[in-house]
Amino acid sequence: MSKYWSDDLTNLTPYVPGEYADDPSIIKLNTNENPFGPSKLALEAMKDVVGSKIRLYPDSDNTKLKKAIADYHHTNIDNIFVGNGSDEVLAHIFRGLLKRKDPVLFPDITYSFYPSYCGLYGIDFKKIPLDDKLAINWKDYARPNGGVIFPNPNAPTGIFTKLSDIKSLLEANCESTIVIDEAYIDFGGDSVIPLTQEYANLLVTRTFSKSYSLAGVRIGYAVGSSNLISGLKIVKNSFNSYPVDTIAEAGAIAAINDGYYFNSICEKIVANRKYLIESLEVMGFNSLPSVTNFICVRKAGLDGQVVANGLKSRNILVRHFSSPQRLNPYVRITVGTKEQCENLVENMRELFGQ
Amino acid sequence: MSKYWSDDLTNLTPYVPGEYADDPSIIKLNTNENPFGPSKLALEAMKDVVGSKIRLYPDSDNTKLKKAIADYHHTNIDNIFVGNGSDEVLAHIFRGLLKRKDPVLFPDITYSFYPSYCGLYGIDFKKIPLDDKLAINWKDYARPNGGVIFPNPNAPTGIFTKLSDIKSLLEANCESTIVIDEAYIDFGGDSVIPLTQEYANLLVTRTFSKSYSLAGVRIGYAVGSSNLISGLKIVKNSFNSYPVDTIAEAGAIAAINDGYYFNSICEKIVANRKYLIESLEVMGFNSLPSVTNFICVRKAGLDGQVVANGLKSRNILVRHFSSPQRLNPYVRITVGTKEQCENLVENMRELFGQ
Repeated sequence: MSKYWSDDLTNLTPYVPGEYADDPSIIKLNTNENPFGPSKLALEAMKDVVGSKIRLYPDSDNTKLKKAIADYHHTNIDNIFVGNGSDEVLAHIFRGLLKRKDPVLFPDITYSFYPSYCGLYGIDFKKIPLDDKLAINWKDYARPNGGVIFPNPNAPTGIFTKLSDIKSLLEANCESTIVIDEAYIDFGGDSVIPLTQEYANLLVTRTFSKSYSLAGVRIGYAVGSSNLISGLKIVKNSFNSYPVDTIAEAGAIAAINDGYYFNSICEKIVANRKYLIESLEVMGFNSLPSVTNFICVRKAGLDGQVVANGLKSRNILVRHFSSPQRLNPYVRITVGTKEQCENLVENMRELFGQ
Repeated sequence: MSKYWSDDLTNLTPYVPGEYADDPSIIKLNTNENPFGPSKLALEAMKDVVGSKIRLYPDSDNTKLKKAIADYHHTNIDNIFVGNGSDEVLAHIFRGLLKRKDPVLFPDITYSFYPSYCGLYGIDFKKIPLDDKLAINWKDYARPNGGVIFPNPNAPTGIFTKLSDIKSLLEANCESTIVIDEAYIDFGGDSVIPLTQEYANLLVTRTFSKSYSLAGVRIGYAVGSSNLISGLKIVKNSFNSYPVDTIAEAGAIAAINDGYYFNSICEKIVANRKYLIESLEVMGFNSLPSVTNFICVRKAGLDGQVVANGLKSRNILVRHFSSPQRLNPYVRITVGTKEQCENLVENMRELFGQ
């Protein structure tokens, strides 16, 4: 606390990112990074643009990147908003679309950044408990609200909410924005992006950090009606004219156009996820039904923190969430390469296999 | 306007960045970019880091970059805050340090992003008129306030406020933060960064976009007491954990360590500025006394918009500000290469030389 801070600053609850590790001997399965690295075409495109052009500001509108994303989703450029990672896109969504008289609704177990955004902008929110299977029940959100947001699949559970459920919610909720955070959609879920053409209050967010393996260069985007997008532009241009840099833009355009590589690494992750779930099941660990690049597992009688600490002592990082309480027994493990998964399984067997 | 927007969104007044131009035949002297391009060492460092490491999130704390900046300024890592361009750093400053009961004070003619930040965060502000020479008089700011912010040198005037004046203001103002935006300091002004060790409420912002010629990769920073910096971290981690990307970080570290190149391009800009001012003076254009990489010029009887339009018809972009009214007669011209300056002078002579 300082007398020079803004009056309400101590009320904020910042997000805590997963531990960073620069040591290649550490197997880092704690922040859902993609183990396979970016498309070679993306790497080449980024190297190619590193030159005298870097002296210039990027295109504030990121027109070329938005065109590539719009083409990929068979929509128009004015349906696309881009930002410095989907975290920034989400922040602008909270400020631009979810700061309303009624509280914004999100699950009690979900991406823990959502309440931080609410603190930042003074937004009232209400957490809606997941059901007893840790799933989202759309009917719980069909009530007066200033907006609804949840990831699909949800994080850190990995559980997918059926498209028909989201459609039911959209039918029941016409007065505020419904935001579906599809950060993990490419590992097995069906997207609601086609529904943005039908519902003017549906906004979908995506990231290049997971399935495109570009976490290091920070690009996320949103797809929705031009009306929602123009609201986000007002916020963005009241915050930072140039959030997406020239090199990142070049990399993302090349990555989204390299469908062959993208599909091949997503398939590998799905295969490794299956291996991981089955191998851990043998030793008594149960996984929530994940369609993401991570699994959320528990074993009866074992605390999740104990599992995370045990693995850390062997140079393997996974993520444990100490709150909310229902997550305590679980650890969230990112699906790595086959070799990383085998290494993890071997260590889990030695530590907790009995 | 949309029924899905946040309640106050239409009250915001977004910043309008200078026109973007991707056409190399256009001489772009409208956004104060550095014409000489980044250090070769910075370009090499960026190319080197483009590889499989991009699959990983950056260091959320940007420890290596902060260390390089701290070393450069002979201070400590906990006195440094970094962000996605100084625009983002400024946004976090407004949210974290300047949202107070009393209004924040800034000049009526200054960086036009400041009121946009105030709108974004619901911050009360008061514009203090520049004096009749378009200079800042520190005594005008020695009054109850929720913070004071101005660029030094000021933009778009280019006029420098003496260090002794800022020191007088710091002595008179102990209850709120004073932010000095030193985006243009490297082209001739003396920095107040050494005073941050003496005054716990002094915060100084910098950018890599101007003197380091890295506008394309978006890095800015702030220097101040650890107390102010920790306030900014709360805001940053309530907004985006990873605003500064891996490639940008590598480039900025190499750039700040390449003092020889940095000094050589700053010297060239100072020399070209002198040439530009003197050449335009001959044809009746008067420049405000600039110590930046731009000049703000007018000629009696000529409207600034007419000058900007005339140059645009010849593929030269400069910046005109239609408000506030006192800026109407002026155009702001970025100091380019000698060749660009000569080209501009030649066209100014043909268009407005009589």
